[in-house]
Amino acid sequence: MTREPALLLIATSEADANLYYATRFLAPDPFVFLQVGERKILLMSDLEIDRARAQARVDEVLSLSEYEGKARQRWPSPHLIDMVGLLLEAYGVPLVSVPSAFPLEYADRLREKGVRVAARPDPFFPERLVKSAEEIAAIAETQRHTETAFRAALGVLRESRIRGEEVRWRGRPLTVEQMKKVINVSLMENDCVAQHTIVACGLDGVDPHNQGSGPIRPHQSIIFDIFPRSSRTRYFADMTRTVVKGRASDALRRMYDAVLAAQRRGIELVRDGASGRQIHAEVTRTMEGRGFETGVVDGRNQGFFHGTGHGVGLDIHEPPRISKVDHTLKAGQVVTVEPGLYYTRAGAVRIEDLVVVEAGGCRNLTRAAKGKLLEL
Amino acid sequence: MTREPALLLIATSEADANLYYATRFLAPDPFVFLQVGERKILLMSDLEIDRARAQARVDEVLSLSEYEGKARQRWPSPHLIDMVGLLLEAYGVPLVSVPSAFPLEYADRLREKGVRVAARPDPFFPERLVKSAEEIAAIAETQRHTETAFRAALGVLRESRIRGEEVRWRGRPLTVEQMKKVINVSLMENDCVAQHTIVACGLDGVDPHNQGSGPIRPHQSIIFDIFPRSSRTRYFADMTRTVVKGRASDALRRMYDAVLAAQRRGIELVRDGASGRQIHAEVTRTMEGRGFETGVVDGRNQGFFHGTGHGVGLDIHEPPRISKVDHTLKAGQVVTVEPGLYYTRAGAVRIEDLVVVEAGGCRNLTRAAKGKLLEL
Repeated sequence: MTREPALLLIATSEADANLYYATRFLAPDPFVFLQVGERKILLMSDLEIDRARAQARVDEVLSLSEYEGKARQRWPSPHLIDMVGLLLEAYGVPLVSVPSAFPLEYADRLREKGVRVAARPDPFFPERLVKSAEEIAAIAETQRHTETAFRAALGVLRESRIRGEEVRWRGRPLTVEQMKKVINVSLMENDCVAQHTIVACGLDGVDPHNQGSGPIRPHQSIIFDIFPRSSRTRYFADMTRTVVKGRASDALRRMYDAVLAAQRRGIELVRDGASGRQIHAEVTRTMEGRGFETGVVDGRNQGFFHGTGHGVGLDIHEPPRISKVDHTLKAGQVVTVEPGLYYTRAGAVRIEDLVVVEAGGCRNLTRAAKGKLLEL
Repeated sequence: MTREPALLLIATSEADANLYYATRFLAPDPFVFLQVGERKILLMSDLEIDRARAQARVDEVLSLSEYEGKARQRWPSPHLIDMVGLLLEAYGVPLVSVPSAFPLEYADRLREKGVRVAARPDPFFPERLVKSAEEIAAIAETQRHTETAFRAALGVLRESRIRGEEVRWRGRPLTVEQMKKVINVSLMENDCVAQHTIVACGLDGVDPHNQGSGPIRPHQSIIFDIFPRSSRTRYFADMTRTVVKGRASDALRRMYDAVLAAQRRGIELVRDGASGRQIHAEVTRTMEGRGFETGVVDGRNQGFFHGTGHGVGLDIHEPPRISKVDHTLKAGQVVTVEPGLYYTRAGAVRIEDLVVVEAGGCRNLTRAAKGKLLEL
């Protein structure tokens, strides 16, 4: 008789997407999830037990304090793992599969009790990567709110005026911080939370993870990378657009066109069964074919030196990757396609859409225009 | 010769407060931190290396891709832990201390290489719990913004009107969702992000972690528990107030007075060297002395069934606890004092302030009024 090993998660579901996926129960403090065969069991503190019984999509919610009572008969001040050990005993579980990120201290304590603990390679729930229609609708809804927030930011850029080296809005120099507030307040009004919105002007944008700060400057690239989570559904979206307040240099326009061509080529190749590595290679080649090389110049990485895309769902970065690693895309996955070019001399361009992988191609969830470099 | 074991962290600093504390460098993707003696070293991807060299408070930022190159000479497709293994070899480190939550898969792979990996009990950096003047100022600033957001919510309650069983605002029934938006937008305007603001009316509040939903009802307790993080400083604050739109029942007023007396008693006892367990016991006794008992009634936990307080800093829940566990308070720690009472018949009350532990007492960072149950 072969049996699937039991699954064990101990985490806070607010921080751990696997635990939220398994239970659809949000709680700020850690709790225990055990799956034996098809049966899903929670071990829950008094504080959360009533809510868990009402809300969690599991078969049984057991009382942690009852298990603590049992554990006290053996150990004077039992550790959480003593209660977990009793739970495993009660269900006759000698071996558990845990996520790769399972806390080492818990694993070591379980092993001391003779439980076999094996870290399962990511993704822990492979089925999580393939989204249901309901999940895709949730991602698309977050994407709509992302675009609404981006339009609010464009509205501010349109209203603002260039005076010499300054961009002025409502009588004062316009800053990245103001733009982010406009974006984040718009998102908040739609129950979305964006933690690290990027609004990166000029040289700031040349460092792809620089979140940006300081004054908005005219005639320079401004990268908007907006990736909020819906507080209601917990699903993320992700979009990047690059615009200019004023007039772009010819060099920047050529960069934009190269990134757009590469991004469109990438989207064209996304389909069930496609190789993420091959798509990334073709995206890279498309930009190289237009003369945009990658390498270290003046001690800095320049050109295109990040992946082409990643999965999006309950985490902002999920498998599959469209990058140098070898991932195969599957229908129902939701991935970004986001090439960029970064040069200290000319500026930075990144264009990112969110697409659903389908049998013969993909469906683009992003509606924001991208056909030419927007000069406002 | 005794040597402190080297410290190893592998995490995303956006999610892992220890890694942010150690480096003051925020990045959304995992990176490697190694401390050997006083020397702090990062292993960083190409994407982040320039920013890390500019911003991280460490001694050395090494290139992950260079280590990957070295690893390829031994393994065809090296794992991150192969690069970490080479790094440990380069520094002659045979033994590492890691956080209790260190990912099991990484630990198992390091152990396969012969590295001794020991999970250090929390707190990993004990010094993190004792806040510097700069850190306390950051927490106090987040607290000011928390109070500004709460005042915005009270403004809405004041503007709204009771019509029968409804509370109406701007011509429509007032909902918890609207109140949360008012709070969260106010926070956002001050660069704070609140992930799970609680606005819990009536029975919703009786479940302390129910975030609340639906219409605001008159003459019932409304619990506001607001705990945002500053996006700028990364420090949290935490405050709870209970108010009523309309008139409270006598039972609810008595509950409020009991919780307030218990909370004030708790704050009175907070000082360097005090026992969290004893404070919690005294807070509990204060409410019991006024006739408010704790236990399971009608199958639900009722009375006071959570801890009195917790540390606040780069995490919203940090040690020390003021609860049944035995923690000793130390000067410089920042803790909440937040007793509550929860009864399905009368409603719910929780009052929470944030205080700095000092030598002979504590300093309250919370300024919002609490002297009597606010009936608006």
